[in-house]
Amino acid sequence: MLSKNTLKFIKSLHQKKFRKQENAFFVEGGKNVTELLTSNFQVSHLLFTPKFAEENQAIINKFNGETFEVNQKTLESLGSFQTNDAALAVAAIRSNEYIELGSNEWGIALDDVRDPGNLGTIIRVSDWYGINKIILSLESADYYNPKVLHASMGSFTRVNIFYTDLKHYLTSSNLPVYGAFLEGENIYQQNFEESGIILMGNESKGISPDLEMLVKQKITIPRFGEAESLNVAVATAVICDNVRRRSFLNSQKPL
Amino acid sequence: MLSKNTLKFIKSLHQKKFRKQENAFFVEGGKNVTELLTSNFQVSHLLFTPKFAEENQAIINKFNGETFEVNQKTLESLGSFQTNDAALAVAAIRSNEYIELGSNEWGIALDDVRDPGNLGTIIRVSDWYGINKIILSLESADYYNPKVLHASMGSFTRVNIFYTDLKHYLTSSNLPVYGAFLEGENIYQQNFEESGIILMGNESKGISPDLEMLVKQKITIPRFGEAESLNVAVATAVICDNVRRRSFLNSQKPL
Repeated sequence: MLSKNTLKFIKSLHQKKFRKQENAFFVEGGKNVTELLTSNFQVSHLLFTPKFAEENQAIINKFNGETFEVNQKTLESLGSFQTNDAALAVAAIRSNEYIELGSNEWGIALDDVRDPGNLGTIIRVSDWYGINKIILSLESADYYNPKVLHASMGSFTRVNIFYTDLKHYLTSSNLPVYGAFLEGENIYQQNFEESGIILMGNESKGISPDLEMLVKQKITIPRFGEAESLNVAVATAVICDNVRRRSFLNSQKPL
Repeated sequence: MLSKNTLKFIKSLHQKKFRKQENAFFVEGGKNVTELLTSNFQVSHLLFTPKFAEENQAIINKFNGETFEVNQKTLESLGSFQTNDAALAVAAIRSNEYIELGSNEWGIALDDVRDPGNLGTIIRVSDWYGINKIILSLESADYYNPKVLHASMGSFTRVNIFYTDLKHYLTSSNLPVYGAFLEGENIYQQNFEESGIILMGNESKGISPDLEMLVKQKITIPRFGEAESLNVAVATAVICDNVRRRSFLNSQKPL
């Protein structure tokens, strides 16, 4: 049975302060929990409904941590979802290790993206486009915030992240930095190199002047109507699409 | 001074039922309100802080409806924003009139997009890409929901909408329907026509079988990684970008 202490522990993980202190976070919902259990995260607690147990017996049998069969109401009182008839799990936060970007790969750098929904959507987008390294400024939203994990739709298990001083990181990287601005070069006419860093700015302030200096190429998504800007997660997707499109079509060309 | 009845009236507009009954909706925040006041919406009430008044005297002077100078606390108690130090306005809902799509233009059709944040983001995306007609199934999120208007970042004033039976609408249209599926033709290799309808499906169920029959071309955003899908607003943006990119680059070609 779930002890009062365990309940209290899980509830505390809604707050960043306690996630940091306990070095733990929780994940909720059937899809996110099964993705977590089949990832290399260290999962300590698994709470599930009889319904989830029926559908995921093999996964539960393989699990080594503490398991608790609970009802839907308990899951909903512990987590952040209005409805959760499946599962909730607690796992250890990964250590914040330096991420090296190879000379043939793409990474995404986020300069103070503060909204958890935006960060989660960017993680999902990044996973879709096969970019599995995200470098985040220290003021960016917390990766282990329940809203981030939810919006990522399980993609958080496949993307590697590193919180750091972006100025220092970008200065020491040899890859070209493509920064998203409202007045850069049209991405449709951009000759993207084979690898690089896509730098996206804060929701209201954009890329900070400190980092602007480190941008090799300012890029812009052309506008055909009157909206002032695009949401940062949407803009990230469109840029990733243009980057991948280019190499895809190049690889399809007859020699 | 604001009467109790006016306060009650504005608060009631949080609910769709009352928006429908009163044929009114509210908009909050500086940017959205100024966009509303310079649009052709019929605005009946304008509530603003001294700070907003200072910065927007010309707009306020031109306004013919009821004005109320209030404090920030009042705006926050009436609206849905946690912070609103600017304004809130009430306007009349536009009548749901048939939208005709010309033979040379693009429209977006939404099959039960239920999440208000997604609908708002799609409106902003659509405005960015110069597509100002959105046709919505009757079960889609309500355009006048405060969350939709907020996510649209003022773009709701420039986009025309029509709620209707999509099956009937698409059947009677002569434009080609491009439907977003997970197993369609790669959008990078798609010869989009000069005009058409981009059809996007529900967040979890996708495009319903009823409408699938009316799709001329199933299209897919190529995937380079492992995410199962993309968020519907993100996917709409990537598709619009590919459609516009094609005609942009065609127009740039030497004759």
